[in-house]
Amino acid sequence: MIVVMKAGASKKDKDEVLKRIKELGYKPHVIHGTTRDVIGAVGDERGKQVLQTLESMAGVESVVPILQPYKLASKEVKKEHSVIAISDTVKIGGNEIIVMAGPCSVESEKQIIETAQAVKDAGAQILRGGAFKPRTSPYSFQGMEEEGLKLLAKAREITGLPVVTEVINPETAELVAEYADILQIGARNAQNFALLKKVGQLGKPVLLKRGMSMTIQEFLMSAEYVMSEGNQKVILCERGIRTFETATRNTLDLSAIPVLKEKTHLPIVADPSHGTGHYHYVAPMAFAAVSAGADGLIIEVHPDPEHASSDGPQSLKPQKFADMMQRMKLVAEAVDRTL
Amino acid sequence: MIVVMKAGASKKDKDEVLKRIKELGYKPHVIHGTTRDVIGAVGDERGKQVLQTLESMAGVESVVPILQPYKLASKEVKKEHSVIAISDTVKIGGNEIIVMAGPCSVESEKQIIETAQAVKDAGAQILRGGAFKPRTSPYSFQGMEEEGLKLLAKAREITGLPVVTEVINPETAELVAEYADILQIGARNAQNFALLKKVGQLGKPVLLKRGMSMTIQEFLMSAEYVMSEGNQKVILCERGIRTFETATRNTLDLSAIPVLKEKTHLPIVADPSHGTGHYHYVAPMAFAAVSAGADGLIIEVHPDPEHASSDGPQSLKPQKFADMMQRMKLVAEAVDRTL
Amino acid sequence: MIVVMKAGASKKDKDEVLKRIKELGYKPHVIHGTTRDVIGAVGDERGKQVLQTLESMAGVESVVPILQPYKLASKEVKKEHSVIAISDTVKIGGNEIIVMAGPCSVESEKQIIETAQAVKDAGAQILRGGAFKPRTSPYSFQGMEEEGLKLLAKAREITGLPVVTEVINPETAELVAEYADILQIGARNAQNFALLKKVGQLGKPVLLKRGMSMTIQEFLMSAEYVMSEGNQKVILCERGIRTFETATRNTLDLSAIPVLKEKTHLPIVADPSHGTGHYHYVAPMAFAAVSAGADGLIIEVHPDPEHASSDGPQSLKPQKFADMMQRMKLVAEAVDRTL
Amino acid sequence: MIVVMKAGASKKDKDEVLKRIKELGYKPHVIHGTTRDVIGAVGDERGKQVLQTLESMAGVESVVPILQPYKLASKEVKKEHSVIAISDTVKIGGNEIIVMAGPCSVESEKQIIETAQAVKDAGAQILRGGAFKPRTSPYSFQGMEEEGLKLLAKAREITGLPVVTEVINPETAELVAEYADILQIGARNAQNFALLKKVGQLGKPVLLKRGMSMTIQEFLMSAEYVMSEGNQKVILCERGIRTFETATRNTLDLSAIPVLKEKTHLPIVADPSHGTGHYHYVAPMAFAAVSAGADGLIIEVHPDPEHASSDGPQSLKPQKFADMMQRMKLVAEAVDRTL
Repeated sequence: MIVVMKAGASKKDKDEVLKRIKELGYKPHVIHGTTRDVIGAVGDERGKQVLQTLESMAGVESVVPILQPYKLASKEVKKEHSVIAISDTVKIGGNEIIVMAGPCSVESEKQIIETAQAVKDAGAQILRGGAFKPRTSPYSFQGMEEEGLKLLAKAREITGLPVVTEVINPETAELVAEYADILQIGARNAQNFALLKKVGQLGKPVLLKRGMSMTIQEFLMSAEYVMSEGNQKVILCERGIRTFETATRNTLDLSAIPVLKEKTHLPIVADPSHGTGHYHYVAPMAFAAVSAGADGLIIEVHPDPEHASSDGPQSLKPQKFADMMQRMKLVAEAVDRTL
Repeated sequence: MIVVMKAGASKKDKDEVLKRIKELGYKPHVIHGTTRDVIGAVGDERGKQVLQTLESMAGVESVVPILQPYKLASKEVKKEHSVIAISDTVKIGGNEIIVMAGPCSVESEKQIIETAQAVKDAGAQILRGGAFKPRTSPYSFQGMEEEGLKLLAKAREITGLPVVTEVINPETAELVAEYADILQIGARNAQNFALLKKVGQLGKPVLLKRGMSMTIQEFLMSAEYVMSEGNQKVILCERGIRTFETATRNTLDLSAIPVLKEKTHLPIVADPSHGTGHYHYVAPMAFAAVSAGADGLIIEVHPDPEHASSDGPQSLKPQKFADMMQRMKLVAEAVDRTL
Repeated sequence: MIVVMKAGASKKDKDEVLKRIKELGYKPHVIHGTTRDVIGAVGDERGKQVLQTLESMAGVESVVPILQPYKLASKEVKKEHSVIAISDTVKIGGNEIIVMAGPCSVESEKQIIETAQAVKDAGAQILRGGAFKPRTSPYSFQGMEEEGLKLLAKAREITGLPVVTEVINPETAELVAEYADILQIGARNAQNFALLKKVGQLGKPVLLKRGMSMTIQEFLMSAEYVMSEGNQKVILCERGIRTFETATRNTLDLSAIPVLKEKTHLPIVADPSHGTGHYHYVAPMAFAAVSAGADGLIIEVHPDPEHASSDGPQSLKPQKFADMMQRMKLVAEAVDRTL
Repeated sequence: MIVVMKAGASKKDKDEVLKRIKELGYKPHVIHGTTRDVIGAVGDERGKQVLQTLESMAGVESVVPILQPYKLASKEVKKEHSVIAISDTVKIGGNEIIVMAGPCSVESEKQIIETAQAVKDAGAQILRGGAFKPRTSPYSFQGMEEEGLKLLAKAREITGLPVVTEVINPETAELVAEYADILQIGARNAQNFALLKKVGQLGKPVLLKRGMSMTIQEFLMSAEYVMSEGNQKVILCERGIRTFETATRNTLDLSAIPVLKEKTHLPIVADPSHGTGHYHYVAPMAFAAVSAGADGLIIEVHPDPEHASSDGPQSLKPQKFADMMQRMKLVAEAVDRTL
């Protein structure tokens, strides 16, 4: 933490700041500049947020944090990439690109099982499908709930594909965990700390989506919430951030992938369906994500998008998905990955 | 809902769209343009999200919503401003500007009671204070929890000020409702639909903060979640949105105030403390909010900001708060309000 | 400038950085941290951008600038507020709120003279009107050009109001300067450095609008461009930034006003017309701007907005403007200003 | 253009709107809805901005544009992709990926010629280098100007690589056009309409960078400015937009590539150097851009980034660039392109 003093700060101001830094258990270190002084506070970083209160003191211009506030998610704690086992055969974070595919919402037994079979045939390794749906409108379809979870389990039984589905409430998280192989935290709950702690306690792999206005640092802090409860199995998911551009539903921030690869050992997947909001942009952005270094993808596939209960416009039909997977193999190989 | 067809859409494409609009229970109405056709879908608006799936159909360029998706929050349903009673004497939404003030976190009996007394003396009508704190870092102070709620109740008993405090989890919402007069939903939970439904069921007045990347329309949809559970007592709070500017912690979007005044009957307050993140910008932005038409303010006040457990840099000392309140009376009068 | 070394940086890496800092003429100062070292570079700040290249060196994690890059615009160089004389009687930056009003575009002699008279009668001190118009579409009305400048001069002659109008091209800047009392730089040209240098050389007062995606620091750097050519008469104008919100044309960032008041001695005006894009939001945001500390306002007024060549939806009719000015006097007085 | 009437609009309001639509030369078409009426205005789209003024009329809630405002840049005017010839052998927009590489600024004869040779050897087809530099600070290096142009011409003579360099001022645009094969318009000048018209008149190929806060639609409107002057040789360049994320210098919006491919026939290149601001993110984002469908790339390469006059942190050393080009060939082939 670096405390920048104002140009005209008095000796008394500086002495007070030095005293307060020591009180908080840090060692102050003054650099006398040509126009102002700068004071470094040296010490263990955890809890350094407290130092931010120095901004209230007389003569202080700003307090600049130097260290990242996350620990367990950082490469300083664990240098090698984490590989997270989802089932006996499916692992995320290794050389193989993992594709999660399926409908936005589970709508019927026929729909989910047909889709599961289709995405499996095309090469997907995990089935996605929502049972509890967080919808912007209270009047929209809210999901099939436990009935939907049962259908997901049935689809898994038939196809062998592990299942990822969303948790939206600490009160129903355990129920979801009984059925799901991966617990998804949606973008709107990415800083729902009560829910993050809960899935941290449940111990199952977590697919954590980036919030729409979350910095990469905050994203890692949310992962840290899960990990600090003892659950290290966090898969990060870039799904688009909110910007001024309206041609796409969100702006898929693919540069987050190399940035995250540098800062954390956790695996990273991309969601080009929510990232763009239009099915015809999904394939190019999926290829781009893999080229940028993503460890996997999550993609919406629906047998009949015009009649989907949610997210029809961004869902691929099974044939389009299969075509995309063919091309994806080539793209993966071009960057030394397999699919 | 307006469906814009592509310039080269075939007759078959158009017929399919017309058929689907009818299937969904709407009446299609075609406008033949010079380069393309546009189809209006006329009918009851609720559930029109389903029409969005028409975007997946051949020949469709885009689907443009015309109506607002909220009902209960809209002025079309209720024309006069809602006035929400918090206690026998305190009402929000009338001519009087209501000021909620107090520390970010409840830290001790002495701290909360002294602050409550100070803000009351300066003219505040409601005491704010956090007991359950949603913090970005799992290693930061998470609040005094039930102990904090008890201290708030004690402060209320002594000063007579009603109390607003945050709920962060459906599992503890009832506990909070036992102590609080207003349940606050924080910005990070503004689209935590499970929590919104819960506070809708509890029936107590709700202070709903705008999410950091929420449009005004989405903000009203979150209010609609609470209201659709039967609780009409929602107070909206503009607390800053996330933009590229870093000189302030958030960008306080004061134009949201006249926009909301036009679209909804619900009262609107502003939070210049979180909106700016620096105590020296709080007073001018508080005056600006009242001038723009806000029905109230929520402001962080701490007797010793340099030693605060959270949000020290944006907290006013009691004397500064009292000075601000003096000036605020004049500003309120200039726009025909009282304080 | 603070250079943050990586946790695992070698002694050789650090020695290279120290050497390079000295080569560039700065004095390095090392702080040994618990997990990594931090190196301050002490010296004259101008040109410190060069230090940014240290980011390319082995072992360097990041380079954090400490000082503001502007000098002439800063309060460190000039503590007292600048008061800029526009005419014998009109001065911006003093206690009096200055209102610039008039149509977006000059359209005819009748239109500009009638409007000038109306805004003068309502209390405006300066006439605004565009002759060279920067339009998003090449097919939109591009302004009356020199003919428009002549009509502005005529309106000044009749009403005595000084005139502000936009320059959009270094090649026509001198022509505009022959007629105008204040040269306006529009938001889209806020980082058109060739144009900034040109108006810096012309010496007339400059109304510099903030670019749509400009940070406050970059805004001051654009002012610095004008000032570094010898022209200190720069008036800053907050006119809204681009965010994800679409209910308003831009997001008027009123917190920029207290921030700028703290960082610069230059006067600051606000433009609620462009900031909101809708005439019915103009008055509340104008009041808010004055309450937040603005030294003036620039407001679009048109006698017949439904037939305006540009910006009709955000223009006030003369009567609405006059009503607003009545109320504005009260708001100004509430914050110890006059109008 | 669709005019949405307010729920309570009177018959008189509607009649006035219908009358005004006809006055403006459009044919009104009313759709009677359940809660409000919607009026379509049918007719030639150019100049439809004028219809926006209907928003000022009584009873009007909003005016929703339906058609895109650009013509020459659109696929409706020209369906096949444009292929732009830069020299006898280099063409942009065909199957071959075109790479423009070189330093941010021309600094010396040795620097530019060595770099030109190195990027040519690695497979680049065009040399980039700035002679007139638009810098945020007036105190930063502003480029070698005409001397730099001469060095670029010399490098072209020696290597045979065509040259792209920036124009920043209409007054010096002709000078630049004497030396350059492609005229670059930088992000900060992307809505400098005077400059766009000028390069439209000069007739040379133009590399148009997207402004930092420009929507895709506005980007195409800037292309339209150049094209409406008679110059159809416009190459679009996605170089990152400004968002709240600070881990990268900008947010490279790769989804703009498939969106632009759908909307325009013009070729699109990506700039991962400015898009990310850090050399270690350049290669993954370059691969991603090609996978997403880019027709080319523009990349900063410098023999000695630690001593660069500008943009050192985001420049690749020649060896790293050569390694990247090796891998890029594989990525290009994976999406059926050549390099």
